[in-house]
Amino acid sequence: MIKIGILGYGNLGKGVEAAVKKNSDMTLTAVYTRRDPASLTIQTENVPVKSTADLDTGKEDIDVLVICGGSATDLPEMTPRYATMYNVIDSFDTHAKVPVHFANVDKAAKSANKIGIISCGWDPGMFSINRVYASAVLPDGEAYTFWGKGVSQGHSDAVRRIEGVIDCRQYTIPVPAALERVRNGENPELTTREKHTRECFVVAEEGADLARIENEIKTMPNYFSDYDTTVHFIDAEEMKLSHSGLPHGGSVLYAGTTSADTRHVIEYRLTLDSNPEFTGSVLIAFARAAARLNAEGGSGAKTVFDIAPAYLSQTSGEELRAHLL
Amino acid sequence: MIKIGILGYGNLGKGVEAAVKKNSDMTLTAVYTRRDPASLTIQTENVPVKSTADLDTGKEDIDVLVICGGSATDLPEMTPRYATMYNVIDSFDTHAKVPVHFANVDKAAKSANKIGIISCGWDPGMFSINRVYASAVLPDGEAYTFWGKGVSQGHSDAVRRIEGVIDCRQYTIPVPAALERVRNGENPELTTREKHTRECFVVAEEGADLARIENEIKTMPNYFSDYDTTVHFIDAEEMKLSHSGLPHGGSVLYAGTTSADTRHVIEYRLTLDSNPEFTGSVLIAFARAAARLNAEGGSGAKTVFDIAPAYLSQTSGEELRAHLL
Repeated sequence: MIKIGILGYGNLGKGVEAAVKKNSDMTLTAVYTRRDPASLTIQTENVPVKSTADLDTGKEDIDVLVICGGSATDLPEMTPRYATMYNVIDSFDTHAKVPVHFANVDKAAKSANKIGIISCGWDPGMFSINRVYASAVLPDGEAYTFWGKGVSQGHSDAVRRIEGVIDCRQYTIPVPAALERVRNGENPELTTREKHTRECFVVAEEGADLARIENEIKTMPNYFSDYDTTVHFIDAEEMKLSHSGLPHGGSVLYAGTTSADTRHVIEYRLTLDSNPEFTGSVLIAFARAAARLNAEGGSGAKTVFDIAPAYLSQTSGEELRAHLL
Repeated sequence: MIKIGILGYGNLGKGVEAAVKKNSDMTLTAVYTRRDPASLTIQTENVPVKSTADLDTGKEDIDVLVICGGSATDLPEMTPRYATMYNVIDSFDTHAKVPVHFANVDKAAKSANKIGIISCGWDPGMFSINRVYASAVLPDGEAYTFWGKGVSQGHSDAVRRIEGVIDCRQYTIPVPAALERVRNGENPELTTREKHTRECFVVAEEGADLARIENEIKTMPNYFSDYDTTVHFIDAEEMKLSHSGLPHGGSVLYAGTTSADTRHVIEYRLTLDSNPEFTGSVLIAFARAAARLNAEGGSGAKTVFDIAPAYLSQTSGEELRAHLL
């Protein structure tokens, strides 16, 4: 059995916990929290909630620590730190800072002969893998990534920070006409606005100036100003009833040519009922790889690009060749 | 530069030749044939056509030999033989005989410290990779493979063997309703007949008994009797005009759950203008991996499951992390 520890028990930590239950070669040994452990109740019976102080001893009996923190401040600090004590995996998704994070985790993990897998999930993660396979197979081509329809937590949070807003759920939606052109192999040049639209469901305070809120959303730099955005004001009850899930998904599309008149289109598409549960499932499959790579003597930082598919599977190489090849 | 040799110059050999031209780190050093080399003209200037007798010396200056033979009789003999002299790769697709072929190539390649990659292309190949990733990430789920719309060479050949038939092009077509049910995450049980239909375009000899031919096609065991098949009789001119390409494609669909009400659907879809050119492109990306694995000291048989995505790409690990993660 592969012994899994989870650090952080937000949506992602809960998704990892659900994933462990689906994998018969794994067991959850503990959930670690920076909060008071007594304040947390988890979904798995007979598994302790512990303090990060226990983790800091470096003596916890776990094969892989799944670090479920935020990319802005948690992971840049946590992943290198715990890579000096345990095999670790995270879902770091600040693209611009990947090289620095990789270098920090690599140095830490090598110093302790541990494996540290970074930036694992679906994007970065499964989508990244598909961008690499497609561009390696068809070097004369172009990749397009579309996200949605799905809830963007970052955009929902940004709206919640506007004065007068109680709650928000923001959906990112691919533009169907753009998707269709790419699927047809046209390799169009698409602006940000042409690829996605954004739709916000907002619960406002009583008496709030709705026109001002709508304008603040639509003109918000980086988050909304480059997109066509629709804003709907709803009440708290409708929010709970119709927008409590965290669905997401999207497509990596790649069109390339192999000779003058010969064009091929590759599409990898995800339709996910729960973003955190799917992300947790990807983390757990790669956690298996981390344990195996380390058992073979491997160490240092890895990404999804560095790991052969067979390492993710419970099934033996012989069985994979006999049944899935 | 990675030096590529091609053994066999049918549709697939030509597809590999086209792929080499799209990869700036590769060069075609020779095409090898069992026919009289003087009888072959290839598409690449200043590259010799040689006899397999040259290859048999074991002294040809190539990094990877791409073996473009048939799975029935060529590859079981050729791939192990040449794995004792060169790094090799093939597209062996007789699923039931993969374990034996793998063992033969493994023994041969290890004896010579060479790499032998077997069963590479899109199915087996890219589709297999997607079956493994999906089932590893969502162990509680089910995989479905749909082929087409595309030309099946095996089925076209089977019809050509019927008395009175001059030519045939057989298209395999997924049943839209079945595809839709799987995309909706229903995980239906589907019979062979419910998944695909078959459509044949046949050029018959003048005066041939068309009703007999149609009946022989529709009742042919293994090939057609388990499917709903449509037969169209056309003339040679229309065959040339409308059915001279070798398009193909299909989808690997996978639906799985991570908790009681949470379902996810993964789809990997290919739409290919030319089956042999795309297959050749996959072979060439994995040929790069073969050369690298061998340069690192690796030996023995491998499949697509054993090779990390980064090995396929011309791009360095640093660049991949910076731009495709």
